[in-house]
Amino acid sequence: MEQYEKLKARLAEIGHIGTSMAVLGWDQQCYMPPGGAAERAEQFATLGKIAHELSVGDETRRLLEGAEAEVAGSDPGSDEAALVRVARRDFDKAVKIPTELVTEMAKATTLGHEIWVKARAESDYKQFAPTLEKLLDLSRQVAEHLGYDDQRYDALLDQYEPGMKTREVERVFADLKSGLVQLVQEIAAQPPIDDSVLRRDYDEAAQLAFGEYVIKKMGFDFTRGRQDRAVHPFCTSFGRDDVRITTRFDRNWLPMALMGTIHETGHALYEQGFDPKDVGTPLSDAASLGVHESQSRLWENIIGRSRTFWNVFYPGLQRQFPDALENVNLNTFYRAINKVEPSLIRVEADEVTYNLHIMLRFEMEKALLDGSLSVADAPDAWNAKMQEYLGITPPDDAQGILQDVHWSGASFGYFPTYSLGTLLSAQLYDKALADNPAIAEELARGEFGGLLSWLRENVHKPGRRYLPADLVQRVCGEPAQSHSYLKYLNTKFRTLYGLA
Amino acid sequence: MEQYEKLKARLAEIGHIGTSMAVLGWDQQCYMPPGGAAERAEQFATLGKIAHELSVGDETRRLLEGAEAEVAGSDPGSDEAALVRVARRDFDKAVKIPTELVTEMAKATTLGHEIWVKARAESDYKQFAPTLEKLLDLSRQVAEHLGYDDQRYDALLDQYEPGMKTREVERVFADLKSGLVQLVQEIAAQPPIDDSVLRRDYDEAAQLAFGEYVIKKMGFDFTRGRQDRAVHPFCTSFGRDDVRITTRFDRNWLPMALMGTIHETGHALYEQGFDPKDVGTPLSDAASLGVHESQSRLWENIIGRSRTFWNVFYPGLQRQFPDALENVNLNTFYRAINKVEPSLIRVEADEVTYNLHIMLRFEMEKALLDGSLSVADAPDAWNAKMQEYLGITPPDDAQGILQDVHWSGASFGYFPTYSLGTLLSAQLYDKALADNPAIAEELARGEFGGLLSWLRENVHKPGRRYLPADLVQRVCGEPAQSHSYLKYLNTKFRTLYGLA
Repeated sequence: MEQYEKLKARLAEIGHIGTSMAVLGWDQQCYMPPGGAAERAEQFATLGKIAHELSVGDETRRLLEGAEAEVAGSDPGSDEAALVRVARRDFDKAVKIPTELVTEMAKATTLGHEIWVKARAESDYKQFAPTLEKLLDLSRQVAEHLGYDDQRYDALLDQYEPGMKTREVERVFADLKSGLVQLVQEIAAQPPIDDSVLRRDYDEAAQLAFGEYVIKKMGFDFTRGRQDRAVHPFCTSFGRDDVRITTRFDRNWLPMALMGTIHETGHALYEQGFDPKDVGTPLSDAASLGVHESQSRLWENIIGRSRTFWNVFYPGLQRQFPDALENVNLNTFYRAINKVEPSLIRVEADEVTYNLHIMLRFEMEKALLDGSLSVADAPDAWNAKMQEYLGITPPDDAQGILQDVHWSGASFGYFPTYSLGTLLSAQLYDKALADNPAIAEELARGEFGGLLSWLRENVHKPGRRYLPADLVQRVCGEPAQSHSYLKYLNTKFRTLYGLA
Repeated sequence: MEQYEKLKARLAEIGHIGTSMAVLGWDQQCYMPPGGAAERAEQFATLGKIAHELSVGDETRRLLEGAEAEVAGSDPGSDEAALVRVARRDFDKAVKIPTELVTEMAKATTLGHEIWVKARAESDYKQFAPTLEKLLDLSRQVAEHLGYDDQRYDALLDQYEPGMKTREVERVFADLKSGLVQLVQEIAAQPPIDDSVLRRDYDEAAQLAFGEYVIKKMGFDFTRGRQDRAVHPFCTSFGRDDVRITTRFDRNWLPMALMGTIHETGHALYEQGFDPKDVGTPLSDAASLGVHESQSRLWENIIGRSRTFWNVFYPGLQRQFPDALENVNLNTFYRAINKVEPSLIRVEADEVTYNLHIMLRFEMEKALLDGSLSVADAPDAWNAKMQEYLGITPPDDAQGILQDVHWSGASFGYFPTYSLGTLLSAQLYDKALADNPAIAEELARGEFGGLLSWLRENVHKPGRRYLPADLVQRVCGEPAQSHSYLKYLNTKFRTLYGLA
């Protein structure tokens, strides 16, 4: 296994460069002063180039071929076989993109982020438009280099959700849409929920303290991670033992920080839960962004917005914010945090309308990439779709097309994974409870050990061993489907809104 | 100039890896959770190895030789000639150290830092001793590879103060010591100054705010830098446009944060003041650590502990801390922050006794490295020297041999630069006032523009163009000497203590 060991050492070095870049990215979004942007772009470009060259170099090809020969007779389920399989997949993908394009993309996205921050702050799409044009162009080049059978978008999607096709997403989204329509219409016919209690005065330090209390209970390990503030909440990892989440606070909108923190902690628990024996290998990573999102959605919504959860945690929240919540009963609070209403900002959207925000972005991305929509016309197209899907029009671009960080990072193909993950969250939760009925009793006591153990064993520890579709089949005994999620939504929201 | 341009591009890449490692180091000391240590060590090892390989690679040698040929006919004072000269010096130094030793050192110092933090927190030298042994051994290997004419210590010293020799340091320190003895003895015969006003209750947030106010006035550019908390105060740079300082706070000891912040800002002003046209080249760096320290000492002591400074800033400090300072007059405060008294912690020492702390470390390092002192005996030796030089004995190792970060990073040869810089600070200040007498009037108004401009032009902008000895000769028209500093100390402290 000499070639295998050498391959492993080389992949570890590539991995360390990757985690170093993650530190640079984290600092960029949490702490970097504006003056640091130019050098940061150069750092990303240089490290990205080196990592890419190492990834696609002749030595890596030779070691990979040698390792493949060495593991040819092994059990395909062995760690060694899995590592080589994943390494081959990464190599074949990386080798297709020229180093110059990787470098150019790294520079363009780093500067793009700074430009986006300013454009969003000033709600000025024109500042961002040339960057978007450039990033679309580079992404088209990436897609052409990666190749695809059916649609160019397939190549980009595959970067985030290996094996997934555009047509499949379109079909799943169509299923989901038809399933949702009746529920949304029935809810719309009900009197709106009053969620004004969530807009009272919530001291930021107290919000931070309560969030930390909750995520410690969930199992976030602060000796192997931390929480900081950032413009856009995210989770990043410098290895399973250093996982960072970020949160943003609104003093007059309690769910922003609290539910955001729980969401990012769902991601973080996945990263902190990779198998220790996989550290430093490409197996110590998520199966896909969809699987990643299944974890954040499960914790944020299925757990964090459930009546069971708040039965336990609401008294503590009331004690933390006596002025705001003393006279608010549990039912009022529970209904408020589950209010269904078309809204402008994706990350603040309720569970029922959320997926419409994703469908909009998915359609916009396809149109921008295939050129049927111009960058100049994009804000109008965005606003028109918002009106069509949600019946509302953003008052400005900051609350419209400029709201998300993704396009400034050229992450086209990323958005659909949010909805794919949302569907999977319900499927996994059903399976966890079927496998271990004691989980339900624990949750009623505010304990999460049983659920976390099930997720650790079935989803976290396997890391990247299986393609997402294979992982779902192994764990759930069936392919990914949307009826678990639709059943979950119907059960929860029909009860909440008093529907039949 | 084709080879020259290629060399410049290659050096820029090496520089970007270096600034990336600086980000990793900053995060490690400011924010990293304990779990992140192992991967951080791997990141340093990988990036350090890559940077070293690029630095000493055949391609670099070839480009360097080509560039030398291309600039052979140029003005030796040109940017091109300076860049090639500095690159040659770095190359010759780097090529002597084997890559494996660089990698091992990077891992050992990263883990060493974590071990030191814990050992210091628990005041348990035994935890740190094996690390110190290991780092001394690696440093001896480094010195042997670098080579030296006279003493092994020369090779290590040269890493921080190019061109400086151990014998020269010994001579300068002997001069300084004899010059100080009389002053210290005369002060010791006076009644001690009561500095209890500095130990009152100083709210941490208010300390932070006042420190920021002061350093903004000094010229710290917060759009190109920031301030964070860390166990050990330091200044680090990710390029001239992103310079980070750190501060630690003691609620009951005002000078710790305030004077520390001014000190680190002195360093930061140097880094922020490099010539924009040098960005991304090896010229965009300090001439030496001694020159670096001259900037921090000048701002902290010659400016920040002067009566002139506090004439202007004391009313603001009183307003910031009315409970603590309302009834304390300027003279009492000024005398308190300039109290001369033997003390345990180097970074909190007064201007007069400070250099004794350095001499102690310099002698310890030489003895540890040449084996005349064992690691096991080092704490006793430290305590004996503290008794000999300062008449006090540390009650525990946290306040003794474990107090400084340097040895955990194998920075043997670093300490002497603190005293060399201290001497230079007075020499530069005298020259600045001689060149531009208006500076004194500005300082009396709490304005620092004239002084900063003089430092920018004479010290900051040249960056690494000249060896420290050449820079001092160019700027001051004389070699480095100790009489300016001794004159400064005698003038200030004889007045303050009412001596003849």
